Amino acid sequence: MRYLDEEAIEDIAVGAAFLGTGGGGDPYIGKMMALSAIKKYGPVQLLTTEEIEEDDFFIPAAMMGAPSVLIEKFPKGDEFTRVFQKLGRYLGREVKGTFPMEAGGVNSMIPIVVAAQLGLPLIDCDGMGRAFPELQMVTFHLHGISSTPMAITDEKGNIGIMETISNKWTERLARVSTVEMGASSLVSIYPCTGGQLKTASVKNIVSLSEKIGRIIRSNQQDAEVKLNDLLEATDGFHLFDGKIVDVERGTAGGFNRGCVTIAGLNAYADSEVKVFFQNENLIALKDGLPIALTPDLICLVDLETLNPVTTEGLKYGKRVRVLALPCNSKWRTEKGIETVGPRYFGYDYSYTPVEELVRKAGVTHV
Amino acid sequence: MRYLDEEAIEDIAVGAAFLGTGGGGDPYIGKMMALSAIKKYGPVQLLTTEEIEEDDFFIPAAMMGAPSVLIEKFPKGDEFTRVFQKLGRYLGREVKGTFPMEAGGVNSMIPIVVAAQLGLPLIDCDGMGRAFPELQMVTFHLHGISSTPMAITDEKGNIGIMETISNKWTERLARVSTVEMGASSLVSIYPCTGGQLKTASVKNIVSLSEKIGRIIRSNQQDAEVKLNDLLEATDGFHLFDGKIVDVERGTAGGFNRGCVTIAGLNAYADSEVKVFFQNENLIALKDGLPIALTPDLICLVDLETLNPVTTEGLKYGKRVRVLALPCNSKWRTEKGIETVGPRYFGYDYSYTPVEELVRKAGVTHV
Repeated sequence: MRYLDEEAIEDIAVGAAFLGTGGGGDPYIGKMMALSAIKKYGPVQLLTTEEIEEDDFFIPAAMMGAPSVLIEKFPKGDEFTRVFQKLGRYLGREVKGTFPMEAGGVNSMIPIVVAAQLGLPLIDCDGMGRAFPELQMVTFHLHGISSTPMAITDEKGNIGIMETISNKWTERLARVSTVEMGASSLVSIYPCTGGQLKTASVKNIVSLSEKIGRIIRSNQQDAEVKLNDLLEATDGFHLFDGKIVDVERGTAGGFNRGCVTIAGLNAYADSEVKVFFQNENLIALKDGLPIALTPDLICLVDLETLNPVTTEGLKYGKRVRVLALPCNSKWRTEKGIETVGPRYFGYDYSYTPVEELVRKAGVTHV
Repeated sequence: MRYLDEEAIEDIAVGAAFLGTGGGGDPYIGKMMALSAIKKYGPVQLLTTEEIEEDDFFIPAAMMGAPSVLIEKFPKGDEFTRVFQKLGRYLGREVKGTFPMEAGGVNSMIPIVVAAQLGLPLIDCDGMGRAFPELQMVTFHLHGISSTPMAITDEKGNIGIMETISNKWTERLARVSTVEMGASSLVSIYPCTGGQLKTASVKNIVSLSEKIGRIIRSNQQDAEVKLNDLLEATDGFHLFDGKIVDVERGTAGGFNRGCVTIAGLNAYADSEVKVFFQNENLIALKDGLPIALTPDLICLVDLETLNPVTTEGLKYGKRVRVLALPCNSKWRTEKGIETVGPRYFGYDYSYTPVEELVRKAGVTHV
């Protein structure tokens, strides 16, 4: 057990945005929300999944929808606790803590806001170990846990409770509500016992985010040393450096969808990488061939600072590095690949772990 | 207080379909559901709004969406009580009875099914005195009553509870869920006290439906005598006789929308009537000029039998009469016209009561 202070929150926001693979929201907005919450309510307790009781009850809180919309619809702050408390009351159980659904600049911070406001601990785990665009794309789903009862709200004050026949139906019904609510909403979903968190979550993701954020935010001036530290901390691979030369995007069905084209720089000068995204980066092709495939993490970072670049921050001329991280092993199962593999998203590639793609291509670690 | 037997149900289904002005569902499907419910559970008590307690609590049950879909998705029967009981439990109040939201072949029958299954009385009132396509189009809305908490379900078993900031938001959010659920859903909405039913409902609509149905189903062989009886019972007007020569329709946004063109017969041979509908008939134009306008009731019936013709039953070659009835006076207020008048639906006509239009045109009662 420990407390998260301002420094920890700054680190977590940046590290979680890195693990958010382009999605999960802007870390600046996220950290401002969390910092103002702990300033007002005091620091937040962080518990590991080993420190919680088997039968205790936990609920996450998260934003759903197109992250780009959040910039225009800055949350008032009470919608997170409203949706969280609504679900708690509906379930009629005392809630002993909260946790993030996914890594991301905003979605790592919302549970900190809720924890601070309600004086609850934050549990060091999430349901993805990264970010994904749809509600059934969580390790809880792979473990057969129901996404409902869930609660959904908007910044205007509309609120709903849903109980569905499948997690895919939760996604369908929550998605149309989210779109109607203005392309973003707040949800509390996948209520879990301590026992379920111990077996079905991705553990220590808050600490890992913090570790990553600390490296990225460090004063280390040598970009290559910093990169090395980052890759070592994440078992990551450095795939490409380049300059963004094209960004196609649109907001369709409540998602940010698109493709970014990166022209190689330095050692990569003769090549081009395309990264396709749906809120999150899903597929990276180098000169037409896959170099990283969902569910492995494809992370775009600033060439110099290594600051994570979210999909809404992609801009012509920006110089970026393309990194890739192996996903949590839960995703590399048959049900995992069926749920979040390339074909689910409509890309005709068989999933191949990034380690194998790297070995085949002879890419080195740095 | 009295009990509704099979004969009463047959009459109510047909009479309510007439008052449904094209919408509210097919009376054959409706009556089959209700008849099988009272066969299994016994007859249903009908109470007037004078016979209920001020502080008692009542919830309606209704179908939402495109009526044409119901024909393909015949309800299993348990979805009506599921949504009704869900809302009752959520509100934590003992429910003392149910009532229809609107007149219609199906929507007059669903509360009878619920009443029979749960041993509750049916209250002789509704929220429209006719049918309308959107959730805020009820007299409860005109009286400032909230549509939520509401419950919504589908035949698959998905279920939701909503609390919204306005009845228009209820319509928006329930509509997108209904479309996603397959263009139809079951809702329990506008929970009311006895006091609210006494002041804000349209009263005696079940009895009126029964009276209308009895006339239409009678053995009277003289069509003109039968028509006269019907117009007398409803303060109605006979506007036109003709043959359907064109039906344009589509299912858009979860509604059946379209226009039927009727070429005059007999005394009307030189004229043409067009009726525009969105689930319900909204506007009738004779040779381009309005002869009846929403919220007044525009009812199409079979030329011989006077059986109501629903929008999904409109067919080329069918011979119909066009009748019109003055709407309940609650609709003829400023808020009423703003909520359901011609301009709300996008028709550039100022509402004029059907009596005035008839007087101006010199149309006689029969």
